[in-house]
Amino acid sequence: VNELQGGITAPRGYLASGIHCGIKKRKKDLALLVSTAPAATALSLTTNRVLAAPLIVDREQVERSPWMRAIVVNSGNANACTGARGLDDAWGMVRTAAAALGIRPDEVLVSSTGVIGQFLPMDRIHRGIHTAVSALNATSHVDAADAIRTTDTFAKEVAVSFPLEGVDIRIGGMAKGSGMIAPNMATMLAFVTTDLHITPAVLQHALRGAVARSFNRITVDGDTSTNDMVVVLANGQAGNRELSTPTCPAYKTFYEALEHVLVRLSKMIVLDGEGATKFVEILMTGAASEEEAVKAARAVANSNLVKTAIHGEDANWGRILAAIGYSGIEFEPADVEIFFGAVPILRRNYAIDFSEEDAKHVLKQKEITIRVDLHRGGSAAAFWTCDLSKSYVDINANYRT
Amino acid sequence: VNELQGGITAPRGYLASGIHCGIKKRKKDLALLVSTAPAATALSLTTNRVLAAPLIVDREQVERSPWMRAIVVNSGNANACTGARGLDDAWGMVRTAAAALGIRPDEVLVSSTGVIGQFLPMDRIHRGIHTAVSALNATSHVDAADAIRTTDTFAKEVAVSFPLEGVDIRIGGMAKGSGMIAPNMATMLAFVTTDLHITPAVLQHALRGAVARSFNRITVDGDTSTNDMVVVLANGQAGNRELSTPTCPAYKTFYEALEHVLVRLSKMIVLDGEGATKFVEILMTGAASEEEAVKAARAVANSNLVKTAIHGEDANWGRILAAIGYSGIEFEPADVEIFFGAVPILRRNYAIDFSEEDAKHVLKQKEITIRVDLHRGGSAAAFWTCDLSKSYVDINANYRT
Repeated sequence: VNELQGGITAPRGYLASGIHCGIKKRKKDLALLVSTAPAATALSLTTNRVLAAPLIVDREQVERSPWMRAIVVNSGNANACTGARGLDDAWGMVRTAAAALGIRPDEVLVSSTGVIGQFLPMDRIHRGIHTAVSALNATSHVDAADAIRTTDTFAKEVAVSFPLEGVDIRIGGMAKGSGMIAPNMATMLAFVTTDLHITPAVLQHALRGAVARSFNRITVDGDTSTNDMVVVLANGQAGNRELSTPTCPAYKTFYEALEHVLVRLSKMIVLDGEGATKFVEILMTGAASEEEAVKAARAVANSNLVKTAIHGEDANWGRILAAIGYSGIEFEPADVEIFFGAVPILRRNYAIDFSEEDAKHVLKQKEITIRVDLHRGGSAAAFWTCDLSKSYVDINANYRT
Repeated sequence: VNELQGGITAPRGYLASGIHCGIKKRKKDLALLVSTAPAATALSLTTNRVLAAPLIVDREQVERSPWMRAIVVNSGNANACTGARGLDDAWGMVRTAAAALGIRPDEVLVSSTGVIGQFLPMDRIHRGIHTAVSALNATSHVDAADAIRTTDTFAKEVAVSFPLEGVDIRIGGMAKGSGMIAPNMATMLAFVTTDLHITPAVLQHALRGAVARSFNRITVDGDTSTNDMVVVLANGQAGNRELSTPTCPAYKTFYEALEHVLVRLSKMIVLDGEGATKFVEILMTGAASEEEAVKAARAVANSNLVKTAIHGEDANWGRILAAIGYSGIEFEPADVEIFFGAVPILRRNYAIDFSEEDAKHVLKQKEITIRVDLHRGGSAAAFWTCDLSKSYVDINANYRT
């Protein structure tokens, strides 16, 4: 794939805007994304049993008919745990956006992120939606990416293009998320656009696979949230032959580009982990199955003890082995090998013979790969996490107030 | 039960000592506990698949014959992930202690805590065991409790007495543990003595039940360790009629006293959680089963987001509800009620109407009870945890070096 500028508006037929409507004091807090043509829509929602109001609305919308033209997103307030009134408010956002854009209400999705348990200031949001409609254009992708941020320190965007049966296809994406990121999609939002022509069912199939290998492979603090969602819109404006089965070569080409985009956005979220100073890849190899590799890698990536040791640049491999020990997988501890970057730290039969200098050199980097070989089979999986710093505590001890 | 002084030497027929043998620079690092008569022995070990050498030895010892006379414990080095040589070293500690005490090697247990992946300095330990034998007496319980500490900021001891069929029975205990504490027994050691006359099988039955409601209900950081163990010795010196079935009233009396002792030690471990400034009880009520209550309470107690909010004295009830949401239990979010101390924070149907003042007043205390009512049934469970502070990061970023 080729990297492009342009984020969510890089693909043909998309407009965006991001404005300040007054949920936050000064920063942008309302984003609007519009497709000029009805777009096949795929949706992936949090596994948390407490579903925020917008997720309940979106699930209903996509189940009724998976063809959308607009998404309205606010930050600063999650509209979660707000009961019947929260649900009314979410539908209100849908209706206002539809009216302002001159489209049907069943063509609009809604999304929220921020504090839980407070009602949305609906008067400001209604006014804000009208402002956002006036601001729509094909170059405001950064405004939109800014408007969905909460504790994010930077806007997260990506865009790529690739040839498919002689046609140039583009995919763009934006995401938010920094704290509360965990496997199974935690307080993170991602909105992906493409001009590919594809059926909703095949698009949903591709999204399911790509989320499993991207957003469900990252963790900041192990908590999962009430509001997470990933949406993909595909409006067909590239003019390719409709992609209607996951068994053709064209599907594989598209799937790989989509996974690439989602992995890029996932890594940006980890890089922006609350208080994170290091990006860490846990590469679990030699597993008996991919599932086993993911299970072991997740335990290591979620361990506060591993994450603080990495923050302290301490080659504490014992904590890595202990985390695999309680991950629930079957394995022989004496067979395990651990590498920091290219430096072997632990060899089979607990052979330890590394220079603290070499280990320290790797741990001093901003990006660290920890590779574990379980010596059980040929499967592997990567998991991405960050270190645990004192700033994490600062940020989260006083988020609400 | 009546509270006593005297820790592990409060029951009749026990001697203890705690000395410096040279694993640590200056602090005490070797403890010895001796029963003057063979004691029925019950053992509970970590669920981590990576078992430290002393645990492998102890499991074998107790399986062969559950009658012990001595336990030797070192701190500063966990003798974990040390392979065949580590196993030899653990057996070496057993043989040296047996020889120095003039008892059989199959009457000695061994335990270690500290850094993973380094070999024990066996010459120092052999000499230290002889010094510890010379120092044995019936009043050195504090020395022993000191000698098993690692990052613990205080020695953890408890002793109680209670009447059983007209006989005065005593139970004493000591524990260590501050970081890496999680359900299923994580880097914590507890040694409990009693002068009760009881069969090993009934003692093991009581220990299993009491651990499930004490050490497996605490969490500091969710990691579980390679070295955790709880041992109970019962030497029969109180002179009661042998307790040989868990169905008699005497068993219930003893079980409740044992659970009381283990819960007291568990709470001390949480109070000493690395960097902890607050002790938090999560009381999950209205659950459909005790198992469900434990599952939901554990998710709340393990949430970094909940723990940092409590550290910041922020009444962020949304994080509590979100944690229950990903705990894996079935429930209706709109039915949940949350109380901080006596202050209702969230009522049914997401009714929120509390004074920030009142909530703050509760959160300012050193000990906080968060009660959740799921409104699903009549079962409940308590779980104990602490807040997550910046000191936790400090302590764990540089533990090994």
